[in-house]
Amino acid sequence: MTMLPRNETQGESKDITLTEKAFTDIVDISDRGLAYGDGLFETIAYVNEVLVNWELHWQRLNKGAKRLAISLPKEDLFLEQIHSMIAQDALLEMSSSSDRVIKIIATRGQGGRGYLYPGSQIPTIVITIHGWPERAAADYHCGIAVTVCQTRLAVQPALAGIKHLNRLEQVLGRNEFSGTAYQEGIMLRGSYHSSTYPPSMTSKIIEGTSSNIFFVNNGHLYTPKIDTCGVQGTIRQAILVLADQMDIIVGEEHYSLHDLMMASEIFLCNSVFGIVPVASISIAEEAYWDHEPLHSERTIMSRLAAVINKTIKRPDVR
Amino acid sequence: MTMLPRNETQGESKDITLTEKAFTDIVDISDRGLAYGDGLFETIAYVNEVLVNWELHWQRLNKGAKRLAISLPKEDLFLEQIHSMIAQDALLEMSSSSDRVIKIIATRGQGGRGYLYPGSQIPTIVITIHGWPERAAADYHCGIAVTVCQTRLAVQPALAGIKHLNRLEQVLGRNEFSGTAYQEGIMLRGSYHSSTYPPSMTSKIIEGTSSNIFFVNNGHLYTPKIDTCGVQGTIRQAILVLADQMDIIVGEEHYSLHDLMMASEIFLCNSVFGIVPVASISIAEEAYWDHEPLHSERTIMSRLAAVINKTIKRPDVR
Repeated sequence: MTMLPRNETQGESKDITLTEKAFTDIVDISDRGLAYGDGLFETIAYVNEVLVNWELHWQRLNKGAKRLAISLPKEDLFLEQIHSMIAQDALLEMSSSSDRVIKIIATRGQGGRGYLYPGSQIPTIVITIHGWPERAAADYHCGIAVTVCQTRLAVQPALAGIKHLNRLEQVLGRNEFSGTAYQEGIMLRGSYHSSTYPPSMTSKIIEGTSSNIFFVNNGHLYTPKIDTCGVQGTIRQAILVLADQMDIIVGEEHYSLHDLMMASEIFLCNSVFGIVPVASISIAEEAYWDHEPLHSERTIMSRLAAVINKTIKRPDVR
Repeated sequence: MTMLPRNETQGESKDITLTEKAFTDIVDISDRGLAYGDGLFETIAYVNEVLVNWELHWQRLNKGAKRLAISLPKEDLFLEQIHSMIAQDALLEMSSSSDRVIKIIATRGQGGRGYLYPGSQIPTIVITIHGWPERAAADYHCGIAVTVCQTRLAVQPALAGIKHLNRLEQVLGRNEFSGTAYQEGIMLRGSYHSSTYPPSMTSKIIEGTSSNIFFVNNGHLYTPKIDTCGVQGTIRQAILVLADQMDIIVGEEHYSLHDLMMASEIFLCNSVFGIVPVASISIAEEAYWDHEPLHSERTIMSRLAAVINKTIKRPDVR
């Protein structure tokens, strides 16, 4: 990597010196990422020697950095660092496939007095490389069983959409189902009056614990708007662009469990698993929805998955 | 420290082996505390060679650990570790005062698959020792200027009360005022329909960014109930006990900005600064409340502060 001059600045932040000092494999115990979850992360598929949807990940990381006023090193430094780590990793592991998952954690760094952060700060950037996770072909061909979580996502427009490090809601939601009965949990939007379980069917659906959700009804595609809570997934973004190219009409509003239960097909998506069909949805162990037998509407999910899943070597959805 | 047998278990968690391995001064980059804010913290005053309100801190830490299903080492291991670190610190620093701030971070540790955590896990316990912060006597005698933050606290009963590591709301709130005009910000409860600023006077008050709030009206003491969001501070707990002993009637409900503005005295509290009077409250730079001249009601705050502040060598409040 090249050294940047000490006063190199980035984007809208005028007062930050950002060199490759930001990149590290050691996090100090005084780091604000640990102390407050004061940072962001990205989980990126590296498949066929391509950082899949890098542009969407980079956009979201920057959107989050802007929202939290964290200054990031320039894009080319990130890419240099990632590719240099991949090169070392490939040599070390000698595995048959070069496919990997790349995780970026970007925190505000150390310092500040309590919650107050200094005006100028070197962020902490940790990049790690992980094996590419297998996923059963049956998940793509038959769909997965999904439950509805009791833990709600709190309404917080200031943090909605970005992929920040405050993920206790997802941790609580994901650990409601630890066996093999369910493979993902749908999280509902919380409100002052809505913490009952089983939930009211008017409760708003937001996403899976680590995925976004789409459903099809009468030939239209729907996905919850991510403006009050939830994460704007990169595959979700890619699907919205693709649907537009395919002239599929997409609704992006606040939908209820009731709306979801009317669907003819439902699927989940994230950057590592692509598009995975939902076979059934249960609430408090009781079945509420089963996918209908194959019919013409089913082709919307299949058409999208044929493109999306191919980029990360995941099976087609039939 | 003594080694615990490998199968030593703690409290309600039957399947965890907890030895002093939990205590560390290095946090791995794969720690869930960094990845998800999956953990808890405490900030404790060590004054006159006493861990002030240790019992309240320990209770809250355990309440949080139970809520998040994190297993903690036993209390005596914590105390041994803290006192051993203080002893080393005193030798190293040779400072005139032994007063310190002790910070405990307790995370779920490493491991798991994404948000899913393993059934059995060694937590990561980081204890750090910090200097005792000075605070101007004028803050206690004249009170401090306070603003009302634009950032709201999201309604999340699953996380309310405990001191977890997901603190982005406080980071955003605290950094709305970075100059010297205000010394603390009051955070309001958010809701789907209430993100306007200046806020409606019916908005519910919760706490300061790093303090709890109390107010006096007609000789009664009031503090917001911490069941939907916010942190149950140890000094808040100590004040509730003390008020009871002093036969002061305390209301603990959901109070609005309007209720707060009717107060004859308002004060903030935390474990390091004790009770600090509020001199004025502004919203969007406009003054909304000024403390009244000294009168009989003022004595409620003074009486409480005379006890509370003494334990941490902070000035009386007059």
